[in-house]
Amino acid sequence: MPELRKDPVTGRWVIIATDRAKRPSDFLRQPVPPPKQVVCPFCYGNEAKTPPEIMAYRNCGDRNQPGWRVRVVPNKFPVLGIEGELNRHGEGMYDRMNGIGAHEVIIETPDHTTTLADMEERQIKEVLCAFKDRMNDLKRDFRFRYIVVFKNHGEAAGASLEHPHSQLIALPVIPKAVKEEVDGGKLFYEMKERCIFCDMVRLEGTRGERLVMETDRFIVIEPFAPRFPFETWILPKRHESHFEASDGPTLENLAWVLRAALRKIDRVLERPAYNFLVHSAPLQDAPLPHYHWHIEIMPRLTRVAGFEWGTGFYINPTPPEESARFLREAGLA
Amino acid sequence: MPELRKDPVTGRWVIIATDRAKRPSDFLRQPVPPPKQVVCPFCYGNEAKTPPEIMAYRNCGDRNQPGWRVRVVPNKFPVLGIEGELNRHGEGMYDRMNGIGAHEVIIETPDHTTTLADMEERQIKEVLCAFKDRMNDLKRDFRFRYIVVFKNHGEAAGASLEHPHSQLIALPVIPKAVKEEVDGGKLFYEMKERCIFCDMVRLEGTRGERLVMETDRFIVIEPFAPRFPFETWILPKRHESHFEASDGPTLENLAWVLRAALRKIDRVLERPAYNFLVHSAPLQDAPLPHYHWHIEIMPRLTRVAGFEWGTGFYINPTPPEESARFLREAGLA
Repeated sequence: MPELRKDPVTGRWVIIATDRAKRPSDFLRQPVPPPKQVVCPFCYGNEAKTPPEIMAYRNCGDRNQPGWRVRVVPNKFPVLGIEGELNRHGEGMYDRMNGIGAHEVIIETPDHTTTLADMEERQIKEVLCAFKDRMNDLKRDFRFRYIVVFKNHGEAAGASLEHPHSQLIALPVIPKAVKEEVDGGKLFYEMKERCIFCDMVRLEGTRGERLVMETDRFIVIEPFAPRFPFETWILPKRHESHFEASDGPTLENLAWVLRAALRKIDRVLERPAYNFLVHSAPLQDAPLPHYHWHIEIMPRLTRVAGFEWGTGFYINPTPPEESARFLREAGLA
Repeated sequence: MPELRKDPVTGRWVIIATDRAKRPSDFLRQPVPPPKQVVCPFCYGNEAKTPPEIMAYRNCGDRNQPGWRVRVVPNKFPVLGIEGELNRHGEGMYDRMNGIGAHEVIIETPDHTTTLADMEERQIKEVLCAFKDRMNDLKRDFRFRYIVVFKNHGEAAGASLEHPHSQLIALPVIPKAVKEEVDGGKLFYEMKERCIFCDMVRLEGTRGERLVMETDRFIVIEPFAPRFPFETWILPKRHESHFEASDGPTLENLAWVLRAALRKIDRVLERPAYNFLVHSAPLQDAPLPHYHWHIEIMPRLTRVAGFEWGTGFYINPTPPEESARFLREAGLA
């Protein structure tokens, strides 16, 4: 008998198949091929092929020259434009505004042939610091209400360039799914005066059946009602609503945890394409007692059917207790 | 300058690219290949290869024998089971219930080598009648609160068998996206005492820039804030919340309109893979003044990036005014 489970924060129901639960070897696995060395705008020496850099951490060299370790540039084909007024206006029953926003690329390393999972921790920490620094900088622009920080790894996950990179999009509106998560957290807080994510951290740490790993600062779990097989969440144990408020030791520990989680996923699922997304509280909000930032990693193993888009109702062939076991048992090598 | 637009019902924002708007020829088109005649469980003579039929419209012959025109069978690999109690229960902070539901396949024709767009109107009308009959039958089972009726056409849209078919899934819960649509309609109704979809039908019919075609009973539009390029909606002009309440002449006209819309899409986009989904009011609700059933067709032209799943925030490279113009100008041949 399959099972229906409800995500406690958003109220989203998912079908979890239990009879014919899919194990890692049941998925049609298409490992992301190792990057080939090609002419690439994100490599040393090609800095002029991107728009001028917004910031970089560097060992030596001038702006827009080699010598950087992490480099942030505007996306050459931005989905939103940075200049102008929002000009919110109605038109009959409809609402529109100018597509104002920022779309930036975080080039995670000068090394074209590596992946985030294969980098050293200190390098990953710098990528996370770049996320934080860019968020704190963009936050000062009051046109922006939310920043989506995400990574598409592999062509199947939407990556068009193979050189390791993440992206951020600063938006003048709060995306619907973010609002739902924050509202869901608020509703729980109003009933219980506790953060629902803090409850989840405690429960999953104690029960252990969906636990992948934990450190003193973070917990890695397969959520109770995952949309996708091997969907993996990383939550800080200490309550904090905004990612960009994380301190140095926290980011250092997160680098270790993120690397470990990605390596386990690579190992169990043979280097799949994946997306990850930083879920953080709306930019201009004060620290929220009812929201808790976290990272959601979604390996791309199944095709999302049209009815899943249309209904917000997902079918997941792998119970999280199963995927957690596989990930727990996998080494980090 | 790109534009941000808000769907008036759900409140979902989308980015509509305007500078480098994609025309039909800009998409990497992968036409769904014409069906090959293979051994197929949905063809005449193979009726024993499916579970026993639930209903059929037939010219002659016995149950589970050739002679049918439309045949409805249980899905051989159902995502939910039909037998048992819901057994809703909590487990700490989590909610779960048994995966009770119905998962049926509507075999649209005995002809393996055709497509819905290529069928005759009277055949399509029978498919729509089958949707209606199954919904009205399943509605009598009070465990079910919603029925998702959908079609995946082409492998890229999730179809695993090429013989023309649609599916339905009866659920003991109301999917999140449906609830949001109904709630959005209700909010508008509370303010205006009008149905927001009725307003949309009137507005789009008058303005015409997003209008694809209309009959005396239906309107076909590209919605103001579409998630996907060439997303196409078919709405009845007369207010009706439940699809399954449609009368014969309405379904007859819908058959013509659906066929025409699919043929235009086939023509402009070179027979793309697509999904369609019937959006209807929750099964056990009385007729609702604030909800209006409709069909949403989503051609599969772009890859949905991870951040779109994670945020509910979509980037659409084709303004609906452009796609409407292409579809309007395309013939039906």
